Amino acid sequence: MNAPRRANVVGLGLIGCSLAMALRERGWHVTGSETDPDRLAQAQGRGAVDAIGLDPEAEITWVAVPASATVPAVKEVLASTAGLVTDVASVKGPIVDQIDDPRYLGGHPMAGSDLDGPAGADPDMFVGAVWVLTPTSDTSDEVFAGVAGAIRSLDAEVVAVPAARHDAMVAVVSHVPHLTAATLMTIASARATDHAALLRLAAGGFRDMTRIAAGPPAIWPDICVENREAIVDVLDLLMADLATVRDLVSAEDRGGLLDLLSRARSSRRSLPAGAAHPSQLSEARIPIPDRPGAAAEVFTLAAELGVNVSDFEVYHSAEGDRGVMIAVIESASADLFRGGLIARGFKPGIRSLD
Amino acid sequence: MNAPRRANVVGLGLIGCSLAMALRERGWHVTGSETDPDRLAQAQGRGAVDAIGLDPEAEITWVAVPASATVPAVKEVLASTAGLVTDVASVKGPIVDQIDDPRYLGGHPMAGSDLDGPAGADPDMFVGAVWVLTPTSDTSDEVFAGVAGAIRSLDAEVVAVPAARHDAMVAVVSHVPHLTAATLMTIASARATDHAALLRLAAGGFRDMTRIAAGPPAIWPDICVENREAIVDVLDLLMADLATVRDLVSAEDRGGLLDLLSRARSSRRSLPAGAAHPSQLSEARIPIPDRPGAAAEVFTLAAELGVNVSDFEVYHSAEGDRGVMIAVIESASADLFRGGLIARGFKPGIRSLD
Repeated sequence: MNAPRRANVVGLGLIGCSLAMALRERGWHVTGSETDPDRLAQAQGRGAVDAIGLDPEAEITWVAVPASATVPAVKEVLASTAGLVTDVASVKGPIVDQIDDPRYLGGHPMAGSDLDGPAGADPDMFVGAVWVLTPTSDTSDEVFAGVAGAIRSLDAEVVAVPAARHDAMVAVVSHVPHLTAATLMTIASARATDHAALLRLAAGGFRDMTRIAAGPPAIWPDICVENREAIVDVLDLLMADLATVRDLVSAEDRGGLLDLLSRARSSRRSLPAGAAHPSQLSEARIPIPDRPGAAAEVFTLAAELGVNVSDFEVYHSAEGDRGVMIAVIESASADLFRGGLIARGFKPGIRSLD
Repeated sequence: MNAPRRANVVGLGLIGCSLAMALRERGWHVTGSETDPDRLAQAQGRGAVDAIGLDPEAEITWVAVPASATVPAVKEVLASTAGLVTDVASVKGPIVDQIDDPRYLGGHPMAGSDLDGPAGADPDMFVGAVWVLTPTSDTSDEVFAGVAGAIRSLDAEVVAVPAARHDAMVAVVSHVPHLTAATLMTIASARATDHAALLRLAAGGFRDMTRIAAGPPAIWPDICVENREAIVDVLDLLMADLATVRDLVSAEDRGGLLDLLSRARSSRRSLPAGAAHPSQLSEARIPIPDRPGAAAEVFTLAAELGVNVSDFEVYHSAEGDRGVMIAVIESASADLFRGGLIARGFKPGIRSLD
């Protein structure tokens, strides 16, 4: 019987505890730490960890502390362990910029809950979720493949994008929507003090739209401060676009309103599903030079092109001078991916798996 | 065997067809009409109607045409039938103001779907939904009780509010949230043209928040024009509040952000559930004078106080000079309701049903 793979989880809140439980379910030996004694007891009560502390022999350490505490926590782990280190903070640029170590690779699982702490933890939280990795040009194939492989083992989907681009994206799809939902909720609540029936009129659409405002508020001040510039940009854009909508309503411009709502509907309906279940798969074999960043570059290109990599492996030759990356993609994306790879100087071979 | 109750449904789109199917499931004989031949054929294909046309003997006619076509359709029905008439338009003030007939009572079911037409119809659409009625001071007990009773038979919950107040409320809980979701969706979609991965990062929160933008756009230009003033007011408020949020982010005001998000969370968590399932019920017996508006006034007061009326009946004495309204409410609201009724000159008796 093989010895189990070993992992640390630093911080056992909602995400850390879910992660620890997911790893244990998949046979990992998980060592966990948490500065808050109540949370630690709750996490132990949920059977999230095998041991308390920091395992110096762990293959990978997941740092799942608040965004503002992430940099010192990652540095401490790098000094105390020999394995890979990643984190789960919602803002990546300010963190990645401050950690200059080849064993660290930033990450952000696009998953969560409106519950708090270990009590809300769910070992299935990451199944089918997108998990962003933010490699730099120094990220080695080994580190990228190690972290990405551990995430794949949780049944999440890896998407690689540069840290600054991640931050601009989450301002659009997460941070500003959250702030907007909170704002709409406070407006409705203030109006409801005049007439209690108002909130009874809130049907499914309003409930859906404000659901994220039910989430734990404590993580948000950090996120807003860390991603300040991108959030302010998108809020400015939203206010400008809402002013345009206001003018369309005020001018009774039915055509303009129909156009806006038709475009929005069409975009919403083409939103990709959380987990891809492609029916036809192809395998891309991509020889990669033995230099930092090649595997990450292939993954980042896939994200840029909207190509979903549903599985992958990196093989290095015995001589160590070059390797091959095998990526499984949807057959419908094969030509797009091939074109992008060739344009970046790779020489891919792609074959159907059907 | 009793003859079935008879209803007309004018307009067999998403709402009309759902309504016709719900009525038929409950034993009504439904006569339907629809000017679009394709829709009519689809509605017939779904078994939504017993007959085509307008039944002059129908006890109640539901007008379910677009908001801008509602006034002429209601007037035509009033001229051709002897029964009660109600409608389902999302904006009430401009419609109610133009129809001066004691047999008409405006309504608005707070339910819908992101599907279109008869194909998306669902006979369970109204189960547990709030259905707003907008009585005026001229609405007789008989008309109010007739329409409200028919709605109760669909397992929806009746909430009575004046038409102008309804319009102000739905601007807050429906119209502006819809326009905002559409605006956020178009911003994300525009950004995604630069980087296809952006929409893959859109996790559950963004999906929930933009779900309403997937709904049929065709009804919205009418709604925006009809409820123009209330929508512009709420959009102005939303933009002002978003500017405040922007300033909090820009100033790195963690305390202000935490306060906003904590208030929003608390409000979201206390949002009443769609259907009330109270464990302890009380029965209020309210003698009402034989003048128009008494039953509607009691219902409107309940809505104003946030008291959920889960069932009710109106009895008139044989002499016809006074009646009694029996309303079933949650026991927890009994004192609140009693206080309000006494303040308005009623003399209620309330007893627990446990």
